[in-house]
Formats: sequence, C-alpha cells, structure tokens
Amino acid sequence: MSEPTKFLLGEEQIPSHWINLLPDLPGEPLPPLNPATGRPAGPDDLTPIFPMGLIGQEVSPEPEVEIPAEVREAYGLWRPTPLIRARRLERALNTTARIYYKYEGVSPSGSHKPNTAVPQAYENAEAGVRKLSTETGAGQWGSSLAFACSLFGLDCEVFMVGSSYDQKPYRRSMMETWGATVHRSPSDRTQSGRAQRRHPTGSLGIAISEAVEVAAQDPDCNYSLGSVLNHVLLHQTVIGQEAILQMQLAGDEPDVVVGCVGGGSNFAGLAFPFLRAGSNARLVAAEPAACPTLTRGVYRYDFGDTAGLTPLMPMYTLGHDFVPPPVHAGGLRYHGDAPMLCGLVKAGRIEARAYRQNETFEAAVRFARSEGIIPAPEPAHAIRAVIDEVERGEAKVILFGLCGHGNFDLAAYDAYLAGDLEDPEFSEADMEAALARLPEAPAIA
Amino acid sequence: MSEPTKFLLGEEQIPSHWINLLPDLPGEPLPPLNPATGRPAGPDDLTPIFPMGLIGQEVSPEPEVEIPAEVREAYGLWRPTPLIRARRLERALNTTARIYYKYEGVSPSGSHKPNTAVPQAYENAEAGVRKLSTETGAGQWGSSLAFACSLFGLDCEVFMVGSSYDQKPYRRSMMETWGATVHRSPSDRTQSGRAQRRHPTGSLGIAISEAVEVAAQDPDCNYSLGSVLNHVLLHQTVIGQEAILQMQLAGDEPDVVVGCVGGGSNFAGLAFPFLRAGSNARLVAAEPAACPTLTRGVYRYDFGDTAGLTPLMPMYTLGHDFVPPPVHAGGLRYHGDAPMLCGLVKAGRIEARAYRQNETFEAAVRFARSEGIIPAPEPAHAIRAVIDEVERGEAKVILFGLCGHGNFDLAAYDAYLAGDLEDPEFSEADMEAALARLPEAPAIA
Repeated sequence: MSEPTKFLLGEEQIPSHWINLLPDLPGEPLPPLNPATGRPAGPDDLTPIFPMGLIGQEVSPEPEVEIPAEVREAYGLWRPTPLIRARRLERALNTTARIYYKYEGVSPSGSHKPNTAVPQAYENAEAGVRKLSTETGAGQWGSSLAFACSLFGLDCEVFMVGSSYDQKPYRRSMMETWGATVHRSPSDRTQSGRAQRRHPTGSLGIAISEAVEVAAQDPDCNYSLGSVLNHVLLHQTVIGQEAILQMQLAGDEPDVVVGCVGGGSNFAGLAFPFLRAGSNARLVAAEPAACPTLTRGVYRYDFGDTAGLTPLMPMYTLGHDFVPPPVHAGGLRYHGDAPMLCGLVKAGRIEARAYRQNETFEAAVRFARSEGIIPAPEPAHAIRAVIDEVERGEAKVILFGLCGHGNFDLAAYDAYLAGDLEDPEFSEADMEAALARLPEAPAIA
Repeated sequence: MSEPTKFLLGEEQIPSHWINLLPDLPGEPLPPLNPATGRPAGPDDLTPIFPMGLIGQEVSPEPEVEIPAEVREAYGLWRPTPLIRARRLERALNTTARIYYKYEGVSPSGSHKPNTAVPQAYENAEAGVRKLSTETGAGQWGSSLAFACSLFGLDCEVFMVGSSYDQKPYRRSMMETWGATVHRSPSDRTQSGRAQRRHPTGSLGIAISEAVEVAAQDPDCNYSLGSVLNHVLLHQTVIGQEAILQMQLAGDEPDVVVGCVGGGSNFAGLAFPFLRAGSNARLVAAEPAACPTLTRGVYRYDFGDTAGLTPLMPMYTLGHDFVPPPVHAGGLRYHGDAPMLCGLVKAGRIEARAYRQNETFEAAVRFARSEGIIPAPEPAHAIRAVIDEVERGEAKVILFGLCGHGNFDLAAYDAYLAGDLEDPEFSEADMEAALARLPEAPAIA
C-alpha cells in the first residue's frame, strides 16, 4: 500500500478552539439591524430566543473561542472526520490534479450539521433551558438537533416543512428515534402556522416563524438555527482546522477550496480556517441555478425569515419571501446567505458559481461510481465545481467539502437515472419580483 | 480530553492477510455434499458459478490467505473502521463494565458486506468474468455487491426479495446509482422465478435460486453469495483483526464478544480472529426468535437455497424452505448458518441466544439516544445481548459488532415507536414442519 487514501487524526486532535473570522473581515463591520428602529440590533434583541453563551459567540470580537470540554467530548463520537484523496475519481477524470475531500457524512445524522447542533444544545442546557424548537426542510438540521438534544437531555420540537414531511418520512422517524417531537408545518400548534393554512406544503420561512413563536412564548424553550448566523459559522470551523492538519499529513496544499453554499455554514466551516492561516487558495462557492443567491442576488439588508421576525441582515438576497423551485438540494434553498460569507464574496475573495440540477447529479453519480460514497444533492454542487476545475486544467490540488451522504435522497437519484429530473433556473421575472419585495433599509456602501 | 472514545488505525494497518479458521476447527471436517451422489462436493461442483480464485479460498487448508493489493487499496476507501468505546451507553446503563463496538456502518453501503463484495468482484474480474448475479433481501448485500462491481467494471444483476423491493425502494435506487440492474423476485427472468409466481412476496431462497440460474446459464456471468460460505467468512476476518489491534490501543481485552447471526459472516468476521489469537473470551451469537436457527434448529445436512440447487451443507437448519416471518432484521432471516460457525456452536465454543423483535428495538433506541448512531435491526440483536450481559453483571469488558447503520430501516423504528411492531416467535408447529422437509442426507455424528 504505497499511496494512502485516507488521512486521519486522533481524537486528541479535535480542535481546542473555534476560529472566529469576524475580526479578519474586510471593510467596516455591518451589524444586523432592528427592523423597527433601523438601528443596530444588540444582544438584547436576541435574549428572548438564544442563551447568553451563544449570543456572546455571535458578537465576539475575539479571533478564537474555546470549545467547551463537554462539546469536544461529544464531537469525539464522530470527529475528527476523514480527509480522503479521491484517487479513483482522479483516474476516472484522467487528471494529474490531486483531489481531496473532507467527509462530514460520518456523523450520526449524516452531515456537518451536528458540529453546531451539539454546542447549541450544550449552551442551552448550561443556561437551564429545557427545550429547543427549530425548523427543518429536508431534515438534515432537524435530525442533527434532535441527536444533540438527546445527548444533553433536552426536549426538542421540530417544525418540518410540509412537503418534506410527506416526502421524507425517514427523516421524521430519525428525529423521533432520537426522542424529538415533529410537527408538519404549517401546523395548528402556532398562530404563525394557523395563519398559513392556505399553504399546505409549507416553506422554510413559515417553519422558522412557527419555531420562533414557540420559543418566544415558552420561557423554558429557546430557538435554534442551523446556518447563516455568526455563531453557527464559528462552530463549523472545526472542519477546516482539521482539514489543514490533514492536508499537511498528505504533504499537499490546496490551490482551490470548493464547497456548496445554502446558508453558508458548511462552506465557511471549511474555508475560513484556510483564510485565517493565510492560504492563497482560490475559494469557490457552488450554489443551485434555481436559487442563485450569490451569483444573482442583490447585496442588501433583508430579513432572515419569510414572516419578517428576525433582525435585518446584510447579505446577498433574492428577497426574503422568495420560494425557490423544489430542487432536491433542500439545504441550498435559502433566499439569502450568511453575512460573513457575503462580505467575502463582495470583496472578491470568494468566487461563486451556479449549477443546474441535472449537471450536479451527473457529477454525483460519477463520484459514487468511483469513490463509493453516494453524495447528498447539496455537495453534488461542489463535486460539479470540482470537475469543472479539473476540466479547466489550471488547478493542481483541489480540496472540497463533502458535507453529507445521500442515503435519504435516493428518490432524487431515481428521478435522475430515469431522466425525470427537472432543471429549473432563476428567471428575470423572479429577479424583478425579488427586488420589488425588499424591505426598507439603509443601502450598503 | 482525558478519556478517548474512538480507537483508530491507519490505512497501513489494514490487515495483509485474511484468517482462515478452517484448520483450527474441532473434530473431523464435514465437507459439503453433492446432493445427487451424496459424495463430497469438490471444486468441480463450484466452477460453473465461482472463479477458481474464490474456490481456492473456499477449500484452502492454509491458516492465512494473502489479501491482493487491489483489494487492500479498495478497502482503504473506508477501512480500517473505528472501534468505539460506548461511554455514553455505559453511563445510561449505569454500569462499570466497559463496552466497545466495532462499527462497520462507515462503508459506502453502510454495513460489513463490502468486506467480501470487494474481493469477490476482484477475483471475478481477474478471471475475465463480465457480470455477477446475486440475491438480496433487505438490500445490504445487493447494494454492497453493486458498489464493488462499480469499482472493478463488472455488470451486476440483483434479484431482490419482492417484499423488500416494495418496502425499501431506496436500497434499489442505491444499487441502480452504482450501475446495477435490479429485479423484483420472483421474476419472469428465470425458470425458478416463474415457478414461484404463487409466492409474490418472494423469499431469500427463491431469489438465490434465480441468481444461481442466471449465472449457470451465462458463461460470462458468475454468482456471488454474501454470507455462509467459507470464503465469505474468510474475507470478513479483517473486522476482528483490526478490533484486536484497537482493543490493544484501548489497553483492554474483551471477556465477551457479541455479534448478531444471520448467515454468520459478520459474527465470524469479528470472532474468528480472537479464536485464532487464543482469546478466552466468551462468544455470544444473537439471533431473532422468529428465525432461531442456532438455538432451535437441527444440526443436519441441508440445502443452502430453497430450490435445492446448492450442495448440501452441514449446519443448524430450520429446513431449507422455511420462510421466516417478515421481521425487520432482513439479514437474519436465513434458514441455516455458516457451517464453520455451526461447528463451533456444536462444539460449545459459541453460545447462541434468541431475542424477540420488540426487545431488540428497545435496545436499539437506547443505543441511538446515548451513542448517536441509529443501528440496523440486525445488530440491534447484538445490542440487546450486550445489555443482557451488563444486567447479568459478570462481564467486565464487552466487545460487540455494530455491523451497520439503520438509515434504510427507519420505517421499522416508526412501527416500534408507535407500538405497532409485531413480535413473532418460532412455534412447535414450525419446527415439526421444518423436520419433515429436510432432504435425505447422512446424519452428522
């Protein structure tokens, strides 16, 4: 066995700190705004639904934040995750480029989401909170939070987007196996849900509104969000820190780092530690052409949810009530993106590319037939971008994030293999509608 | 992080040899018999469906068999698998016993089956075979062979038991994603299938007959079996060899080794290397009360398949045409067991225990809520046996095989959590019927 395929770390090499990129960002900081006053939203705006431990992480100016021992111990259930050299994919592509992927699908719920679910559950348990409420689309986030709550003895109440609830009963079963209560959203449980009975298939925005409402009304319950916010991106930086060590083990340095972007936490988790380390690697963010936030959105203050309950955040947005077509990459169907990530796109440090659904599945099947792992539809976008990089012929060493497996997405593969997969794209009319729906807020310089 | 949870090996520690326990077995060897002549079946009886490379491994008297470099390289896609100390389960059980599990669910198809699928595909490709046919019940084996065939450029044709084909469409999609062709069995593709139209839900025995028939009639196609045979057990010994090294890393030695048994390859793969190494650990085999081969079967020569196409094999059997109730542990629904394993049960070296379906799911949910991983229904039997060992209070160090995850079995968890899970048991009437159906064959001393 002359050439190793996997680069592994011991449990003692789980990072001791998360990396906070906030102090490194270019330009003046753009705080979230209170939509009622138009003024910067402070910690007080967040205390009804988040514990102080997480609010502190959300606004921290420190370059690093220590990971609590209990969180590191729980990370040890599946971390460090493997870094794998995709030798068989390289052969299949007939390339001399070296391709590596950081595989987060080994977590109990099958994606990177537990990296933040665990510290969120921990901080809430420490603060004496009894229960967490959240929304979930395809179920990756909800199942990760259900898992994390089971570790820290918290109840967990999940509002699952109606169409996904019907299509993915296994994700619901998974949450219930870990002890969570799952509602089909819109539900009768909340005012926000009852008001949306006319939208029986639901949306992520509606589900967020339901979960926030439950948390705001129950003093023992907090809300938990799986992407976008600073503290979520912070938690995900364990991915990139491990990857840096593992690339050193491999004796290689990436000249391109690739990831898919929905809310941005998976991409940031991989890429931010490379930025902190001063890497000159090109950073490539891959998103769906059906929801092309970074490539076609406008850089503006907008709400994080459909109902307009959250602070206004500076980001590339397609409009907070944009409902993307039902592509199978459910985790990438978000109208905005993490403000930290958007700032780096605006500054030109991150390149964004949009791909159509069918070309991402073509790439995913190619990957599955060479490397074995069947990817989730979300990282299939990253694989498509990697193949593009190879075909351009410039990159010598490519690292990408394989943020989850596709075990719960095989109906999508069925449709692709049968030639029945739709290939929606964002239209000029969508764009016009998006611009018309933006809230009043200060422009960004 | 004072106490490690995971014990990992580097790729260079993938075993270089498989362990062949055949020369160590107690008593006189009991060869398989040609059912037509009643005389020992030799390599010639196997050449129509197996390549010589595998036949050589099937009958090898050597204590070790070298693993080909290409197979070790493919193993490197997911091996070595982790050994994990179940600290959270220990806490949940309030025990001072130390519990470890060897987790095979990290393979691309999610179970231990690729350990043998890969060398089988390799040996067939080396022999110039173009295609492999096989049967699959719940889909673990079929998807593993589909994956292995994709690595070595072989076509793959899978006969999937009708009831599973209907219940588990995702397993079918998985096989198709790796490029396999999947038939619902009984099918119109074969004589054996057409003859069984009256059993529309199918059975593993019928599906085996279909796959063997396809291989016997097509000179470019061989048959591949996922358990029971000597060479399959041989390939699985990578599990136990790694576990021995990992237990040394943990500074512990098991006094009980536990695994579930369907055909026996998972259990043998974990336990046989401990036997070779002279371990005094008790070996506990857990099986379903609905298909209690080792605990209630008779030790006799019987066919490996329903139609009676295979050689007669010495084993504990419930009768080759016994159709077990549709418990969710599809991989444990086999009328017999590996002859090598049966010999050790007969000799008293392995203890067998049978468990009802509901008590295994109760154990699995307990495991999921402490350790995170949702187990497949098959290893849920092993977890039940582990909890029993803990409750008996004698064992200090328990090692068990967690041979796969339950991502494709969540409908079963649904039924369990809703209180709708059936709890079938083998009856005296089943036993009488089984005895009446045994083929004529010499008794075993």
